[in-house]
Amino acid sequence: MATNKVTFLPHEITIEVEDGQSVIRAAMNAGVHINASCGGEGVCGKCRVIIEQGQVEGGISEQLSQEDREKGYRLACQALVKSDVVVRVPVESAIDRSVLNLAKKPRRTARIKQVDFESIKEQGLFVPPVEKIHIRMEPPDATNHQPDVTRMIQHLRQHHGEHGLEVSLAVIRKVPHVFREKDFDVTVTMARPVRPSGKTRIVNVQSGDTTDHNLAIAIDIGTTTIFGQMVDLISGNVLAEYGDFNGQISYGEDVITRIVFAEKGDGLDILHKAVIKTINNVLGKIIRRSKVDKDNISMITIAGNTTMTQLLLKVDPRFIRRSPYVPTAGIYPPIRVSDLGLELDEHVTALVYPQVSSYVGGDIVAGVMGSGMYRTEKLTLFLDIGTNAEAVVGNREWMACAACSAGPAFEGGGIKFGMRAAKGAIEDFSIDPVTLEPMIVTIGDVRPKGICGSGLITTVATMFEFGVIDNQGKFNRNLKTERIREQDGIWEYVLAWKDQTQVDRDIVLTEIDIENLIRAKGAIYSGCMTLLEEVGMNIDDLEQIILAGGFGSYVDLEKAMVIGLLPEIDPDRVTYVGNASLMGARMAALTNKIRQEVVAVTDMMTNFELSETPSYMDHYVAALFLPHTDMNRFPRVKARLEQLRGAMG
Amino acid sequence: MATNKVTFLPHEITIEVEDGQSVIRAAMNAGVHINASCGGEGVCGKCRVIIEQGQVEGGISEQLSQEDREKGYRLACQALVKSDVVVRVPVESAIDRSVLNLAKKPRRTARIKQVDFESIKEQGLFVPPVEKIHIRMEPPDATNHQPDVTRMIQHLRQHHGEHGLEVSLAVIRKVPHVFREKDFDVTVTMARPVRPSGKTRIVNVQSGDTTDHNLAIAIDIGTTTIFGQMVDLISGNVLAEYGDFNGQISYGEDVITRIVFAEKGDGLDILHKAVIKTINNVLGKIIRRSKVDKDNISMITIAGNTTMTQLLLKVDPRFIRRSPYVPTAGIYPPIRVSDLGLELDEHVTALVYPQVSSYVGGDIVAGVMGSGMYRTEKLTLFLDIGTNAEAVVGNREWMACAACSAGPAFEGGGIKFGMRAAKGAIEDFSIDPVTLEPMIVTIGDVRPKGICGSGLITTVATMFEFGVIDNQGKFNRNLKTERIREQDGIWEYVLAWKDQTQVDRDIVLTEIDIENLIRAKGAIYSGCMTLLEEVGMNIDDLEQIILAGGFGSYVDLEKAMVIGLLPEIDPDRVTYVGNASLMGARMAALTNKIRQEVVAVTDMMTNFELSETPSYMDHYVAALFLPHTDMNRFPRVKARLEQLRGAMG
Repeated sequence: MATNKVTFLPHEITIEVEDGQSVIRAAMNAGVHINASCGGEGVCGKCRVIIEQGQVEGGISEQLSQEDREKGYRLACQALVKSDVVVRVPVESAIDRSVLNLAKKPRRTARIKQVDFESIKEQGLFVPPVEKIHIRMEPPDATNHQPDVTRMIQHLRQHHGEHGLEVSLAVIRKVPHVFREKDFDVTVTMARPVRPSGKTRIVNVQSGDTTDHNLAIAIDIGTTTIFGQMVDLISGNVLAEYGDFNGQISYGEDVITRIVFAEKGDGLDILHKAVIKTINNVLGKIIRRSKVDKDNISMITIAGNTTMTQLLLKVDPRFIRRSPYVPTAGIYPPIRVSDLGLELDEHVTALVYPQVSSYVGGDIVAGVMGSGMYRTEKLTLFLDIGTNAEAVVGNREWMACAACSAGPAFEGGGIKFGMRAAKGAIEDFSIDPVTLEPMIVTIGDVRPKGICGSGLITTVATMFEFGVIDNQGKFNRNLKTERIREQDGIWEYVLAWKDQTQVDRDIVLTEIDIENLIRAKGAIYSGCMTLLEEVGMNIDDLEQIILAGGFGSYVDLEKAMVIGLLPEIDPDRVTYVGNASLMGARMAALTNKIRQEVVAVTDMMTNFELSETPSYMDHYVAALFLPHTDMNRFPRVKARLEQLRGAMG
Repeated sequence: MATNKVTFLPHEITIEVEDGQSVIRAAMNAGVHINASCGGEGVCGKCRVIIEQGQVEGGISEQLSQEDREKGYRLACQALVKSDVVVRVPVESAIDRSVLNLAKKPRRTARIKQVDFESIKEQGLFVPPVEKIHIRMEPPDATNHQPDVTRMIQHLRQHHGEHGLEVSLAVIRKVPHVFREKDFDVTVTMARPVRPSGKTRIVNVQSGDTTDHNLAIAIDIGTTTIFGQMVDLISGNVLAEYGDFNGQISYGEDVITRIVFAEKGDGLDILHKAVIKTINNVLGKIIRRSKVDKDNISMITIAGNTTMTQLLLKVDPRFIRRSPYVPTAGIYPPIRVSDLGLELDEHVTALVYPQVSSYVGGDIVAGVMGSGMYRTEKLTLFLDIGTNAEAVVGNREWMACAACSAGPAFEGGGIKFGMRAAKGAIEDFSIDPVTLEPMIVTIGDVRPKGICGSGLITTVATMFEFGVIDNQGKFNRNLKTERIREQDGIWEYVLAWKDQTQVDRDIVLTEIDIENLIRAKGAIYSGCMTLLEEVGMNIDDLEQIILAGGFGSYVDLEKAMVIGLLPEIDPDRVTYVGNASLMGARMAALTNKIRQEVVAVTDMMTNFELSETPSYMDHYVAALFLPHTDMNRFPRVKARLEQLRGAMG
């Protein structure tokens, strides 16, 4: 991907961006403020900049006079960078230079870590779970009446050193015809045992040589969304991916309401069928998109939280929500897809990630496995923030984990204009410290509909940095701007005026929203603190953070530390693994090493029920501030605030 | 059972019989001839005898005059022995005394061998396949949130030394409620692995203590009939037994016609469903009769011939009947009953006996295992005569086996009045060497409908002994009796006149019937000879014969040797095991020892396709005589014939 340099004046900040990036996103990433209220759709006309050198494409609008256009004015949200450019932000929309130099802080997002099959192999972690062997047997004749299956097993023993083979009835049923299609020239699919002492199962026979095609499917069952990947077991590549809303949503937004539903009448069956239907839809999509032959799929690996797992398997989840909160099983056996109603061939086995406890489920175990946390010596905080938040601290020697009652604020829940990270969600924010005018960017560069998790973090952090809100999340009542106002007794900030939105209302951020965000981040932070304290460690011992979950890829790490969501750590030590559950499912499809070790890892993961851990409440109360009641835990945030507020006088 | 002594005069033969036995059956067993044509129903009035001492019950008929009654005349077929008695057979219905003394030859049937659980235990052959353990777990509380299943597994490990446990999804689904019914007081059913290195599978959980109830089902799938037994795994007893005709019969009498049917359209599915329906019917019956709780049944063991097994498992059997005659599989994995449609609880596993070849199937392997042949040092001939006949020779060191193309003559097939051993079948026969009048006894003591296998053997043997037929099965045309006649060019003997039958026709035995019987017995005998020869042995090396199959329990061993069906051997060395397939299924249900050894035994059983074994045809042609072309193979028969025929002049 070609990149271009963008230099912003008068800030004198240069940033490298991908070719075709919009100027406003370049500015946002550079930490340069440009007033902008319409999300990037070009309707507010506020984001006027002058292109002093280089080429941009677009950005000419009827909101710019002919004279302005000739002077080089362009709308920053519409102008796409096509070469190295120098962009001047006009005085009317730039903040006071003294603050400006302090405020400039390029976005720091986490390094993205992905599954790297070659590296798995190099590290000796590759233990193939499914292998194909092409064999040419002697056909039976008058001197050799061996049964077909015996013939195959003897051939594999004599010519391939395969011992202790098991053959399923489904395979036996295929044998007579498959063997005779190409005169006993067949490919045998072998599912390897997890432990070397186990037996290899012959799970498929196909006529001719099909060894080039060996596939598995990885599935993440989220409470909200279900993702699937078609995994090529030869290259390690994902051939297709698809996500869909979990069909159970119509029976309840969160796990508790789902459990309540499952307890009534045939609720369990309804929820079971709903999730199977969604998975089948996902399967259909990824099979079509990857254009593979279903017969070459031998395995499906599945990760989900404890409730999702029990509903998938039709195991009554009612005791998950009742004290003392015990799930039915930790480890599940391999399951035949036909037992679940999954529309894959009869021979396919489903492997389900084990659960630690009622609220730390297979999705988290999958994350710990898939992210490699279980193998590192470094003291690690693994944090998965989705509909709920779960934290794991530890390393290869030990792990402690807990579910944090964070609620769904980071997915938009409990936030007046909160929404998931979808088109029209404000995902980034900057503010002019003098005029208090915002710069907002939305997903899809359209007029805003609401604000998503990463947008919320950035907005609240930025407001706090510039003193727009105090450390309890309350607006400074003395600021002179019509954007801060009291409506029905509640103070709020107008992120976008009605006429620049898609929702025909002013989009605002209220003090209640901020309070909810503080509660959520407080629950997560205090959960991590409690875990560390319970194992006799503290924040300074942390060597790395692995972030997982839907909103994590774009979140500005510095901002997340400013609000006290993340402990203060060098952003270089933060990795983002995206959908860790899906990653873990894919890893388990790629190598048996994961399955060999997952039971021991799950056993090692000591679960803490925070509500029953006495120190938790103290940690929680102390965390209900921005960033925390104890600023010494956030020395860099403290220093930055002092600098900024000093500069602003 | 009380017994009484019956002394026949003028023969001076005394025999011990059960209290209540009919005089005519006592005579038959003693080898004493009394004319009798109506099968024991009392209508022909020919079987007049005089009770000289002791008490009988019944036998007074209107066919006896008052005077006769007072003299002590009774009908032998109606008179039941109630004390020690002396019975005189009147001169008019007894044969000439000189022959009489030679002819008297009490019936020699084989010793019946049955499953003896105590002896299995004493011999160290008892390895329980399914065990129940009653446990009282600590219920979960705030200090112990272990998942339910983990709690159970840990409890079993700590308190019962159980390791390497596997739990099925079906069990996991039961766990949450079963555990809480009696506060974590449960009984766990464990299916033990065949090999010690394998894993124990937890197949059921029940609340409270159910260790007293531990059941399995044994099934024999015959081409004609399906038998089932409810086996108590604690006492070893059979709690109920039931047999039913195989529902596949309407689609073909024998395995070949079934295979032909299976090849067309959805024939395989139809036959599969038909056998499952019959088995379900048998299951329903034995469950009701034994009044057990279905939940306590953990296993079903099944034995059947190769075709029956493949139809049961819905594995296309078409290649069984095509050269080079290979079955699909020898060994089948344990199968879940739900995969077959068997109406047992989901947790029940079906174990299916392995097959040696297309025509030596699981029924024979089951017989070899169940009869203990696989453990004996004695050179043994195992012979299973049913719809088809299979022979195994060998001992614990080696075995050779073959299917003999005997056809269904012993089950009545190809015999003009042939029928299965059911009510009205002539099952025993004797002849007056002078008058050539018969004595017939039928199953159920009713007027005859036809003749069954054992009746046929005895009839043909007796006729041969007295020279009524020659060694090629042809009637002596010179005998003066209206019972021997030519009808439509075919010679026959009238076993019962029309008015004494249930079928409104004379019941006859034709030369064609005899020819078919000779072919059948010739095929079996020559099959055994061929096997022995192929392994370098001969008939004199045989130390014992194990007979199995439907007609074997009542067959007169001496008579079977007279016709050359069985090699000549001391009758004491012949054991009858009845339905060996069912016996083997039951044994496999009772002890894992069988399953541990069955694969090695099956591998050891060298199969011979007789049609491809050159020496077979010579043996066969030589066996198409009574008893054989080479009388030196049957020295005792030879001696007896010389004696009898000498006496008869």
